[in-house]
Amino acid sequence: MTANLLEGKKGIIFGALDDQSIAWKVAERCVEHGAQITLTNAPVALRMGVIQTLGEKLNAPVIAADATSNEDLENLFDESMSALGGKIDFVLHSIGMSVNVRKKKAYTDSNHDWMQKTLDISAISFHRMMQVAFQKEALADWGSILALTYIAAQRVFPDYGEMADAKSLLESFARSFGYHFGTHKHVRVNTISQSPTITKAGSGIKGFSEFFEYAEKMSPLGNASADQCADFCVAMFSDLTRMVTMQNLYHDGGFSSMGMNPALLES
Amino acid sequence: MTANLLEGKKGIIFGALDDQSIAWKVAERCVEHGAQITLTNAPVALRMGVIQTLGEKLNAPVIAADATSNEDLENLFDESMSALGGKIDFVLHSIGMSVNVRKKKAYTDSNHDWMQKTLDISAISFHRMMQVAFQKEALADWGSILALTYIAAQRVFPDYGEMADAKSLLESFARSFGYHFGTHKHVRVNTISQSPTITKAGSGIKGFSEFFEYAEKMSPLGNASADQCADFCVAMFSDLTRMVTMQNLYHDGGFSSMGMNPALLES
Amino acid sequence: MTANLLEGKKGIIFGALDDQSIAWKVAERCVEHGAQITLTNAPVALRMGVIQTLGEKLNAPVIAADATSNEDLENLFDESMSALGGKIDFVLHSIGMSVNVRKKKAYTDSNHDWMQKTLDISAISFHRMMQVAFQKEALADWGSILALTYIAAQRVFPDYGEMADAKSLLESFARSFGYHFGTHKHVRVNTISQSPTITKAGSGIKGFSEFFEYAEKMSPLGNASADQCADFCVAMFSDLTRMVTMQNLYHDGGFSSMGMNPALLES
Amino acid sequence: MTANLLEGKKGIIFGALDDQSIAWKVAERCVEHGAQITLTNAPVALRMGVIQTLGEKLNAPVIAADATSNEDLENLFDESMSALGGKIDFVLHSIGMSVNVRKKKAYTDSNHDWMQKTLDISAISFHRMMQVAFQKEALADWGSILALTYIAAQRVFPDYGEMADAKSLLESFARSFGYHFGTHKHVRVNTISQSPTITKAGSGIKGFSEFFEYAEKMSPLGNASADQCADFCVAMFSDLTRMVTMQNLYHDGGFSSMGMNPALLES
Repeated sequence: MTANLLEGKKGIIFGALDDQSIAWKVAERCVEHGAQITLTNAPVALRMGVIQTLGEKLNAPVIAADATSNEDLENLFDESMSALGGKIDFVLHSIGMSVNVRKKKAYTDSNHDWMQKTLDISAISFHRMMQVAFQKEALADWGSILALTYIAAQRVFPDYGEMADAKSLLESFARSFGYHFGTHKHVRVNTISQSPTITKAGSGIKGFSEFFEYAEKMSPLGNASADQCADFCVAMFSDLTRMVTMQNLYHDGGFSSMGMNPALLES
Repeated sequence: MTANLLEGKKGIIFGALDDQSIAWKVAERCVEHGAQITLTNAPVALRMGVIQTLGEKLNAPVIAADATSNEDLENLFDESMSALGGKIDFVLHSIGMSVNVRKKKAYTDSNHDWMQKTLDISAISFHRMMQVAFQKEALADWGSILALTYIAAQRVFPDYGEMADAKSLLESFARSFGYHFGTHKHVRVNTISQSPTITKAGSGIKGFSEFFEYAEKMSPLGNASADQCADFCVAMFSDLTRMVTMQNLYHDGGFSSMGMNPALLES
Repeated sequence: MTANLLEGKKGIIFGALDDQSIAWKVAERCVEHGAQITLTNAPVALRMGVIQTLGEKLNAPVIAADATSNEDLENLFDESMSALGGKIDFVLHSIGMSVNVRKKKAYTDSNHDWMQKTLDISAISFHRMMQVAFQKEALADWGSILALTYIAAQRVFPDYGEMADAKSLLESFARSFGYHFGTHKHVRVNTISQSPTITKAGSGIKGFSEFFEYAEKMSPLGNASADQCADFCVAMFSDLTRMVTMQNLYHDGGFSSMGMNPALLES
Repeated sequence: MTANLLEGKKGIIFGALDDQSIAWKVAERCVEHGAQITLTNAPVALRMGVIQTLGEKLNAPVIAADATSNEDLENLFDESMSALGGKIDFVLHSIGMSVNVRKKKAYTDSNHDWMQKTLDISAISFHRMMQVAFQKEALADWGSILALTYIAAQRVFPDYGEMADAKSLLESFARSFGYHFGTHKHVRVNTISQSPTITKAGSGIKGFSEFFEYAEKMSPLGNASADQCADFCVAMFSDLTRMVTMQNLYHDGGFSSMGMNPALLES
């Protein structure tokens, strides 16, 4: 396959942290498909220094932005448009962090200030980003916005904690803003509900490896990898999927449509 | 029908404001079915003085509680158990308020501090309340918790604004906490997705009456009234529905299952 | 609870086979709640003779009807209205049989003639029954029609085979006819998606007991029993639920909203 | 975009009738993307002679097959593998016909023999086709199977009649067989739920043009065209979407996520 699906397109990728991140793979794959991009993450994440390596490799400016700060997001869109020489065709939001999970607070003993911080970082940041882009008219006509989510937004995985609630909120923002962006600029907004993926974020969750194995067995195709997710993001950023909007798309090897897989009983 | 479906049961009803409120009707209907209840609302709502009238009529203590304050909620459960003489069998959460909608801020120009306040009042209050009840072991075995929600959590109704996102979050809390409550105490947690209803809260929304008419025509049975919602809540609080949990139940005359109703084209 | 929720109501119960059948329990519970009913099943099922015992106990006429014969169904409604002295307030459809599963044909090696027979018995029978009732104007205003279904209609349980497809079709008939019945007569049509239940029908499925245990552990409240299903049917036949229509209602202890239950990993 | 997303892939396209057919556009687009294909339709459709023109243009053998005949389907796969020189990478099922709708029988007065024929043509044909392909091991590893469907499978559009029920059944077959194909051969099976589209099939439905306009206004991006559907099919046949399976994918400009669009009230 010698496709150049994103030739001439300009994008912003949020949330690449290291070479296990889904966002990292998406950035690489988009550039392979001919896109020009900028990379962004929180100042504290940039200080680790690894993203700069990716930026150099992909010839992609790295722009610090705290996704809970509208000012930072405004600056990010301004700088991205300036660096890429025009409006933005696609955006990936891959940001999530649960304070209560990280601090090992039980769901039934949540600190509600921390919960609000979790929602701000993991979900409201998506609304903020879209609002900034909307007000700046920063998205090109027929652009594509994606956020990564997880099936805990629909079904309970107890160890996932309040992040489930944050993902429900995130998916709702995709629908709500999808209406406004679609009507105004033909921009589509979707979420990809990805298999559990071995990344720094994923492995922070209690019982992650048991859970990864469970999903692997439950899914007829097995768990989708970060690389495969990057391929799917390219499809969703390309012009082949212009009329798909306000959807939550399961990229999970069939997990979401399984009730029970006999493979779980064998072992 | 001479049923006494809630005889011997004790409940707490959040959110009665005036005699148009769904919570008001639920309170009346629960008492008709033999329950003893307490009523609660925010201090500012109590100052209007109408709820006291309902409290007297139903012989139901009225207890002020700001649903965004864990301390107030702790006090509410303590006082309710004391007044009713035991653990709580059922709770209705009927609380919602959007600051951005009230202040006529467009969804694409949201004030994010206000949005966080909206989420706290309309959704996190539900988590707070369940957490307080859980930690106090205040719910009786096989108890039933309900929150009122709206189909904007699944589909976009632009005028509903950020309240759609708050309702998505609320429904997620029902699922997430429903797991913990079910496992621990056989308590079920569900949300009722009610037709648009002419209440003080509903009529604050822009274009409410056009929208009410639209839903009325779309729904094969018409819109469900507040009185009918109260009947359904009684069924969901009764022992007839013990195994229904972590569900979002549409009480909407069929609206949610309609794609198009030819009645909309006639006029 | 001394409720008489169905006092004065007339109903038809399809599918009672023996005292483990859900329909059997529903029949008993409806009569306890004051209803008068008729019982029906296929001639071959009646020949077993057990249903007559139930009929005598409940003072309920037993009327043979092949649910794949419109003529039999016409006769059933005529005789029921005559025996009960008026229009029918509620109907339970609890009929399902998979020829390919029974004959141990793999899903990937289905006999399509048998599949059509499965669909006719398990799903089209529901459409036939509603059509006959509709044309005869046999349902009372604000009546309630229920069919029992299973979550295999939404998610794959491989051993359930083509019955999954039959249940999807059944649920679609509920929605489609629910529109017509709702508009015409305020009659509501819903399906109840019940936990796996130990009945003659259930136990015919390969691997049923492993599966029953799996669902028991997955569900925060455990599996719903046939008795509990009967309670829920009473609620859905009663006037408390008049505005719920065209819905698929999970009565499953929370199974449908679980992604993974840590209880599955312990053993 | 100079993509060759399907280079080296072999496919079978069911259901092209004339140049308005979605299947016709899909065939053209797949060949543009480098695929080799065969075309198939019922003998009676081939007699119209237009498909041969398409076949010549695309260098695609046209093979007659009645999709309700397992023998014809066996022959189709044999001939296709022989003509294309190997196993099949992708299949499009675009077949649907309602006898009752065509003969203007009301849904509440359905002829059930006709209904069974409708289900056989529109849904069971999909199971038959997959079963034949499965048994012949005719699909290549990581192949992709698609069927076209419509949102009437989830929500009621009264004029769509029994076709709604047929589409529910079709979507269930996709899930059920998707498990078997995924486990066995990494083949994915999905359905695309397409906007109402002006084709010969679509325009046969009563009130189609009002309905088309309604959906056009309801959808933030407007209705998806047949050409856009062809693009989306290419994405779903390509290797970019390997881990998406057992899903129903809305390709509808956002229609499915809208509750009400204010644009409907303006006119």
